[in-house]
Amino acid sequence: MEYERPLFYHVMAYAESAERDIVDMVSGNPDWEPPASLREALIEYAEHDVSEFQYPPSEGLTPLREEIAARRGVETERVIITNGAGEANHLSMACGFATHSGQEVILTDPVYPYYSGRTTLLGGTESLVPVAADGSLDPELVREQASEETALIVVNSPNNPTGAVYDPETMAELVAIAEANDALLVSDEVYDHFDFTGNFESALSIESTHRVVTNSFSKSMAITGFRVGYAVLPERLVDAARTRHMLTNVTGSRPAQYAVYRALRETDRSYYNQNRDRLAERIETFTDALDDAGAEYTRPDGGFYVLARFEGFPGSLENAKRLIDEAGVACMPGEAFGQTREDWLRFALVTPRVEQAASRLAAYF
Amino acid sequence: MEYERPLFYHVMAYAESAERDIVDMVSGNPDWEPPASLREALIEYAEHDVSEFQYPPSEGLTPLREEIAARRGVETERVIITNGAGEANHLSMACGFATHSGQEVILTDPVYPYYSGRTTLLGGTESLVPVAADGSLDPELVREQASEETALIVVNSPNNPTGAVYDPETMAELVAIAEANDALLVSDEVYDHFDFTGNFESALSIESTHRVVTNSFSKSMAITGFRVGYAVLPERLVDAARTRHMLTNVTGSRPAQYAVYRALRETDRSYYNQNRDRLAERIETFTDALDDAGAEYTRPDGGFYVLARFEGFPGSLENAKRLIDEAGVACMPGEAFGQTREDWLRFALVTPRVEQAASRLAAYF
Repeated sequence: MEYERPLFYHVMAYAESAERDIVDMVSGNPDWEPPASLREALIEYAEHDVSEFQYPPSEGLTPLREEIAARRGVETERVIITNGAGEANHLSMACGFATHSGQEVILTDPVYPYYSGRTTLLGGTESLVPVAADGSLDPELVREQASEETALIVVNSPNNPTGAVYDPETMAELVAIAEANDALLVSDEVYDHFDFTGNFESALSIESTHRVVTNSFSKSMAITGFRVGYAVLPERLVDAARTRHMLTNVTGSRPAQYAVYRALRETDRSYYNQNRDRLAERIETFTDALDDAGAEYTRPDGGFYVLARFEGFPGSLENAKRLIDEAGVACMPGEAFGQTREDWLRFALVTPRVEQAASRLAAYF
Repeated sequence: MEYERPLFYHVMAYAESAERDIVDMVSGNPDWEPPASLREALIEYAEHDVSEFQYPPSEGLTPLREEIAARRGVETERVIITNGAGEANHLSMACGFATHSGQEVILTDPVYPYYSGRTTLLGGTESLVPVAADGSLDPELVREQASEETALIVVNSPNNPTGAVYDPETMAELVAIAEANDALLVSDEVYDHFDFTGNFESALSIESTHRVVTNSFSKSMAITGFRVGYAVLPERLVDAARTRHMLTNVTGSRPAQYAVYRALRETDRSYYNQNRDRLAERIETFTDALDDAGAEYTRPDGGFYVLARFEGFPGSLENAKRLIDEAGVACMPGEAFGQTREDWLRFALVTPRVEQAASRLAAYF
């Protein structure tokens, strides 16, 4: 498989080399403070006995797994701590291929590019199911596509890049479709703390042997570089996933796991609510400016991202570069997420300079 | 693939549940202090701006890659920072399968069990080449085994569990055999800082397009739980390895990478020499006691481990448990490392209680 540097990096590099000031709305890196107890825990950990610097259990630090299991209402045995949601998704997909006969992976269009890349890496073939203009997914389209050839259905809610939050009925339907076709549903829920509707429901609420939920602390605690995520697996897949995790990574990084454990216990809801509310305000500011600029957009129900379309300005890499040079705003070209959003641009609202970006865009268009 | 909890865990769990005091000589976790600057760097990192808590480049923090590249005398582009040597070995083996036509992996017997596990996970078949009584590897045996069916040759020097340090001629022969059969040699050198002969030479000294060198800071800095390792790849494999690393793990854990970077720069040779010399002394103490106990053993040229054989006491899991209960010493049964060392027991010298263990063994046998 050829290495293809994600489009993401091209845009970032181009923005960094620009001569003018650029508002970065490319990356999904939170810009707010991590929980205070996370910093404290890292300092405390640095003074621990050297025995605490050695291998944690392969499946992750036991207190962290227990804490997650208790919060998610599942048995600790079903939780594996991974190197971020990235490994959790790769691991789940690999286990899906290993335990189901088909080779097809059903993804949505627009699609998060890593899901496509993993499908290819693991020897599968992808089928893209288009979502509606508002980002919602019609489970009937998934049902029509699914067959005994289907090994995996991978969804992400709240969604990157559409901002859609799938309703509980959709999730229940997706689980049922996975069961009916002996496929595995992988529900990637990394943006679950950024639900503006109050209606988000984890796929965990539907008990099934054909569903994995993946998540991480990267977004919710503003620590994408710490690499602490997890998968909640059905019992039948736990052994296969442990084996693969152990032989791939041995285990995850302990300082990061320890800091997350402490922060998870010691951080109350107000931290998460504050960050969510700040994002909601930024969305308000940004979409007001998009109205002024005459752009079409989808108001996100969850997550960090706003997809926008400007008349006569399709979402190509070339136009993303033009926007950097001529408007001083860096964003992701829609073509990075598949064919249905080629006319669109994705703006990540993880910058305090949303207002400035918005007025630059309004002035430019 | 069935999950098989490594024998390692069974022995550790048995030792922990024992009612008497046990000297733990099972695990390969260093018991000495990490570099002082590693602890300092972690504390310093905890206070960094939140932007430094976000994704490092997929291939690892640039200053760390540059520092490693400069020390190893290779181009920075060829260094990928991995989640420990575990990921580096998995990644190298996966790339070996993806870019070579055969499915055979040549390993040595005794074998580090993870190499066998990865071979199976990746769909290969293993061929075990027995090493000599002193642990040395006769490259002629590898040459006889190798064919166009061979995708990989995986070696570990200084070796776990034999303690052998392969001489430069052996390494050169192995590289030549890999080239002649269009296979990939993976040279895992995680114990390179614990060479008691002064003769260890990295496989990096032989330039080749058919050789990967893997390493980590787990053993040299006493931080097996931090998960910072690396692979030095031939140029032709760099893209494939980057793709696979990115899609599997996205990137490694940044706090750990930062701490290792600082420690790598700020720790002088005396730190490493002191730890190596301490191990050499422990080996002396331990093998003297083995002499007293009438045991046969191989004196390690490198690494942490001593293989010993006691008359009428084969290296089974059952006997390892007996030794825990009756002698108060926990070690690894030789059967964990393949057939040729089934009569042996492996003792890890990463405990300050080597002398006590030695006298317990001398008293018991």
